[in-house]
Amino acid sequence: MQTTIEQAADILKNSDNILLLTHMSPDGDTLGCAFALCRALQLMGKTARVITEGEIPKKFLYLCDAVRESDFDEELVVAVDIADEKLFPENAHKYKDKVDLCIDHHMSNTHYAKSYCVEPTAAACAEVVFKLVVALGVEIDRLIANCIFTGLTTDTGCFRYSNVTKQTMNTAAQLIEIGCDSYKINKLMFETNSRERIALEQMALSTLEYFDEGKIAVMAVTLDMLEKSGASDSELDGIAAIPRTIEGVLVGILIKQKSDSVYKVSVRSDETVCSASELCANFGGGGHAAAGGCSFKDMTIEEIKLKLVSQAERMLGKN
Amino acid sequence: MQTTIEQAADILKNSDNILLLTHMSPDGDTLGCAFALCRALQLMGKTARVITEGEIPKKFLYLCDAVRESDFDEELVVAVDIADEKLFPENAHKYKDKVDLCIDHHMSNTHYAKSYCVEPTAAACAEVVFKLVVALGVEIDRLIANCIFTGLTTDTGCFRYSNVTKQTMNTAAQLIEIGCDSYKINKLMFETNSRERIALEQMALSTLEYFDEGKIAVMAVTLDMLEKSGASDSELDGIAAIPRTIEGVLVGILIKQKSDSVYKVSVRSDETVCSASELCANFGGGGHAAAGGCSFKDMTIEEIKLKLVSQAERMLGKN
Repeated sequence: MQTTIEQAADILKNSDNILLLTHMSPDGDTLGCAFALCRALQLMGKTARVITEGEIPKKFLYLCDAVRESDFDEELVVAVDIADEKLFPENAHKYKDKVDLCIDHHMSNTHYAKSYCVEPTAAACAEVVFKLVVALGVEIDRLIANCIFTGLTTDTGCFRYSNVTKQTMNTAAQLIEIGCDSYKINKLMFETNSRERIALEQMALSTLEYFDEGKIAVMAVTLDMLEKSGASDSELDGIAAIPRTIEGVLVGILIKQKSDSVYKVSVRSDETVCSASELCANFGGGGHAAAGGCSFKDMTIEEIKLKLVSQAERMLGKN
Repeated sequence: MQTTIEQAADILKNSDNILLLTHMSPDGDTLGCAFALCRALQLMGKTARVITEGEIPKKFLYLCDAVRESDFDEELVVAVDIADEKLFPENAHKYKDKVDLCIDHHMSNTHYAKSYCVEPTAAACAEVVFKLVVALGVEIDRLIANCIFTGLTTDTGCFRYSNVTKQTMNTAAQLIEIGCDSYKINKLMFETNSRERIALEQMALSTLEYFDEGKIAVMAVTLDMLEKSGASDSELDGIAAIPRTIEGVLVGILIKQKSDSVYKVSVRSDETVCSASELCANFGGGGHAAAGGCSFKDMTIEEIKLKLVSQAERMLGKN
């Protein structure tokens, strides 16, 4: 059943021994929301704890400062920022079909919980949690504010994405007024690179080539580069975005070697002149208008490049 | 005389043929404020125009959409976001000592105008201009909102810097509600790299070295790299920031060749463990705690690196 913020707050007020679930590959929003809510419940005198998939990524460790550790038999199970039970981490599988309350902002939420408070217009689940903590009657302190701000800023790319609304900015305004460490958190989230990522970026940039008068840019990352840099697959996301950020580039392509004979391709495009998903569909792939992907097997990087660039040129030529 | 927002609005209401001055090397705040104000005045039926140093940088050209061109003998001269008459561009020198009203947010404003409305707690002059346009009784439309948003986001590094306050975020919230193109503007301001900048970054990253167990990182940019990449001096600012963004790096150093025998050094540091200005003072330079600079002559890059790294190691060792 869809609940209002007030109804969700009532469920929490009338419960104790509350377990908070976060999604697999936890990000700043699921963690920030869970720790904010956990602290709010603890401040209300309740027993609550957060479970996460494996260890919390180092850059999010400060969120744990908000809560006391606690061990208990759960009476209420709450999922935060989890659209689907498929996204439960391994250690939460036993709570499938047993979630009492789900707090979320994903349009795609599958309504797996007994009660769910889902606000699809919220840029981050943190916007919903902010209102929920207010409805709980808990005064938001600096530590709760830091948790909520972390969710807000990470899910909006530091207030940059198109999902940002008036509510996002107003929530941030109130958190800043409370004294949250907005500057420190933004610095940690957005201005910190790993040595491995920097090394991989340098190697990838050295392969950068332009085609079609600079409208198409292609970079490649080989297994050798991944090994030499020590970078993990998760660092590739940011690197895939680089070619399209270059002035004049309408189609940005990253070719990533996955094994000796398999390559995956990420395409980012100006959707008004070339659909990335259409381009990738020519090679058995898909995606969205502005970002797509496809795979190639038993071809060299040069051959893959030629195919992609020819197709992109044809599509740009039509405009 | 310091004026309130309302008094500044009254000065504008009671005037016509208004000239708006922007500062040299114009940025998003001075331009956004001037064009926002110019449009507001034009919507009031007044004659107004903006003067800028040379041509407006390409990425800010959309701001001009907000105003009609206009030529007239000025009756009121207004400076926006200009702290000091020294910052007047060449083509505004004749207005020195002749500024009727200054709208600004710099603590260091020298109060050169007959009337000045300076709000030092504002992160951007755009926050002051937003309130001023409201006080003028002009309904803020999408074009004015785009101009003001440009000032807000550029002076705060996309709402990232420590100058951001509740007022900054609340102003942004209202502009987003009006329908400003926040996403497009942020993309243009922060996710667009020149080909030259990308090429220089790749070359600079290839020189990256770590010292003192990764606490110190050093990069170098030679004249040869500048020439090969075609990058201009203004692209170096962003590159100077890179070493310090790397995880674990407390002192980030960029050595830039200025001529055959002259090198300039930029230092960024974690001010809590090593003052950049103190480090640079050892070599005749200075700056702030977190960012400093110094110069070297008739030495090789290797010699300069050795001197800087030894000094940084000594300073870090004391902590």
